[in-house]
Amino acid sequence: MTSPILKIDPKLDLVLEREIDVPVELVWKAWTMPEHLKEWFVPKPWSIVACEIDLRPGGTFSTTMRSPEGEEFPNAGCFLEVTPLERLIFTDTLLPGYRPAPKPFFTGALELSRIGSGTRYKAIAIHGDEETRKNHEEMGFHDGWGTVATQMVEYIKAGRVG
Amino acid sequence: MTSPILKIDPKLDLVLEREIDVPVELVWKAWTMPEHLKEWFVPKPWSIVACEIDLRPGGTFSTTMRSPEGEEFPNAGCFLEVTPLERLIFTDTLLPGYRPAPKPFFTGALELSRIGSGTRYKAIAIHGDEETRKNHEEMGFHDGWGTVATQMVEYIKAGRVG
Repeated sequence: MTSPILKIDPKLDLVLEREIDVPVELVWKAWTMPEHLKEWFVPKPWSIVACEIDLRPGGTFSTTMRSPEGEEFPNAGCFLEVTPLERLIFTDTLLPGYRPAPKPFFTGALELSRIGSGTRYKAIAIHGDEETRKNHEEMGFHDGWGTVATQMVEYIKAGRVG
Repeated sequence: MTSPILKIDPKLDLVLEREIDVPVELVWKAWTMPEHLKEWFVPKPWSIVACEIDLRPGGTFSTTMRSPEGEEFPNAGCFLEVTPLERLIFTDTLLPGYRPAPKPFFTGALELSRIGSGTRYKAIAIHGDEETRKNHEEMGFHDGWGTVATQMVEYIKAGRVG
């Protein structure tokens, strides 16, 4: 169930939802432990070369993506809500300690629920206006977030998340 | 004690701290109940003509200020942390439901602790850069936030907060 605090607006927001056949406990670990997140969080051949997670509201959530050409793109933000196995909300509009960020873009939410031995997986991007949503869509939201969800499932199935 | 999640930076942030001789329970009510907050939250003769509070992380914190000339200034934002009698953190960088806001300005924190029958009262404004801190200071942060703290104490002492 989507958090009652989030009000999804199809004009402003983007949603990826799918059922995946890996258990919710391993999905939670894959998302919240840097050593796991680095392995699947960007579409290959891009990579994550740094990741810092302080898993509490106001705590750091930062990643640095590297392009195949070696250019690095740091992303900094913080967590807003952390409900183990159910919900993770984070944003790049606030830096750690809730400090306003220089380049706010979106708030992200991951929502999980158990379905048998698998997981209903919902990733949401919340934007402030239609133009930002459109830019995110054109940057490849659906392909990108779908690709990394697939990479995550493969990584989990390979037995890499203990 | 300041929340361990907040990292106050004197170059970026503004802090008002004082001891007030009213109990922490009444300060908490004065800050979190719209009918009370409206009575003291802006320096008179300005007034608050509307206030909405949904006291939970991601919930609405909005006020509309009216100038003595009758011009209205709405402010919208949301709460980030709500720890009764101790800490309230809110921001205008995110609208309710954590949606990125069109005009991010600052994150505010109220920190309270009991001292005898009174309260140590700390109000913090966290900014993203030095220019924003400077603008906030020039807008009258210290006078303004100090004035409204005094108004709040007078309001509580008048027996208006039950």
